[in-house]
Amino acid sequence: MTLHAFDTALKLEAIAPGRYAGRTSAAYWNMVGPFGGVTAATVLAAILQHPERLGDPLSITVNYAGALAQGPFEVQLHAARTNRSTQHWTAAIVQQDAQGQPVIASTATAITAARRETWSLSDLPMPPVPRPAEAPAMRYDQAMAWIDHYELRPITGAIPQAWDGRQHDSSVSQLWMRDAPPRPLDYCSLLALSDIFYPRVWLKRATRVPAGTVSITTYFHAGQQELRETGSGYVLGQARGQEFRNGFFDQSAQLWNEAGTLLCTSHQIVYYKE
Amino acid sequence: MTLHAFDTALKLEAIAPGRYAGRTSAAYWNMVGPFGGVTAATVLAAILQHPERLGDPLSITVNYAGALAQGPFEVQLHAARTNRSTQHWTAAIVQQDAQGQPVIASTATAITAARRETWSLSDLPMPPVPRPAEAPAMRYDQAMAWIDHYELRPITGAIPQAWDGRQHDSSVSQLWMRDAPPRPLDYCSLLALSDIFYPRVWLKRATRVPAGTVSITTYFHAGQQELRETGSGYVLGQARGQEFRNGFFDQSAQLWNEAGTLLCTSHQIVYYKE
Repeated sequence: MTLHAFDTALKLEAIAPGRYAGRTSAAYWNMVGPFGGVTAATVLAAILQHPERLGDPLSITVNYAGALAQGPFEVQLHAARTNRSTQHWTAAIVQQDAQGQPVIASTATAITAARRETWSLSDLPMPPVPRPAEAPAMRYDQAMAWIDHYELRPITGAIPQAWDGRQHDSSVSQLWMRDAPPRPLDYCSLLALSDIFYPRVWLKRATRVPAGTVSITTYFHAGQQELRETGSGYVLGQARGQEFRNGFFDQSAQLWNEAGTLLCTSHQIVYYKE
Repeated sequence: MTLHAFDTALKLEAIAPGRYAGRTSAAYWNMVGPFGGVTAATVLAAILQHPERLGDPLSITVNYAGALAQGPFEVQLHAARTNRSTQHWTAAIVQQDAQGQPVIASTATAITAARRETWSLSDLPMPPVPRPAEAPAMRYDQAMAWIDHYELRPITGAIPQAWDGRQHDSSVSQLWMRDAPPRPLDYCSLLALSDIFYPRVWLKRATRVPAGTVSITTYFHAGQQELRETGSGYVLGQARGQEFRNGFFDQSAQLWNEAGTLLCTSHQIVYYKE
């Protein structure tokens, strides 16, 4: 059995306590570095294989300080504090520059938690949308490598077909999505999916300005049971911008499974030019 | 001239490169530690007085690993990476335990940025609400100390007047707010305001279960000019929950000034019991 490209991309070797060696994956290459969702997932993958890890992912923030260069990198992890039911992690992705000096490509913090069943309630129902089969899969010509590893079925707010600079009313995108080929959902792939949306500024302006995520925060609502129930089915992603101001905009996103369970909510601040 | 209690709470002494000594403030005491908004503001205050700081705050994530004990603490800061126009910070708030061992109370990451004027657009207009003068200021009896240092004028979703366990339709709160006594808005006080909302789970359930923020992320859209324009005027805060599940809920919030400028957006994940 061949490993899924996503699992290959996330392969890490424990080289010392809290130190994991990895290598960028051509399969998930974006324009000047790996797809940010895979970079974030790599940090989470390291946390999940740490022998002292307590519970499941609750929250993660990844800051993209600079593009990862093609080649080897190291994830450096530290359990800053372990409580009875929560654990606080700090992390960095580090590469060596041409002079052999360490360069921090990403910083991150994360929280894992041993969760118990409590009173629960969803306050944000899945919006009414066509089923995945009714939303045609998008095809990209000459796209970035990473997009080939996702099946994307836009419903609204698809990437503009004409870069004509006409201002779009809404910055909302909705799409069904999953790994290609399908792969049972886990925390790492869910985290990667939470970063899948193309820059809201492209949608709003129908202009393809340089843009890139600076920081992403994802909150996990799904437990192991909800992940199992989702399996390799589709996930509905919805994203919108709130404010575009002087080089940065923010995006808020929600991801539901086909049964309408909110799996995670995610926020990011994104750089754009001009 | 007496220092505002907020400025007193944020007073830090530089004791070594990247190390700032502070002390918890009785004025902003919550139930088992300081008001989290002031704790976050303290991290930001340290960054703002760091001699190598580049630009203004863009984004900050503060993770509350454990309650700060009353007394001295240290903010430890590191500029993980400085780019041409952005700078990535990692930080921790550290106290000593009874044995003199360091204990991490909070971890944090932040990004500062030198912003330039670009195409800008607000995609989230301020909701139509009564003016501040039309929203009576709330009075609290036997409340936590920190609330006395804010003027809060609820519009909708005020803290339940009866803890009768009746489920509330909406988890939205809107209120006008500012420091008491009034104080010109700056990044630190704006950050504190972004954490002002009482737990959404109390509103939703009309039940006062133990609850506390685990992690907050605030994105700053305001530049120095928008802060100056806001002055000591009111800020409209709006917050809602999205998902309450197995001990944690998330909250998304927006803060506008009276002129309707979106100053910051903020998200948090909050622990609750049962």
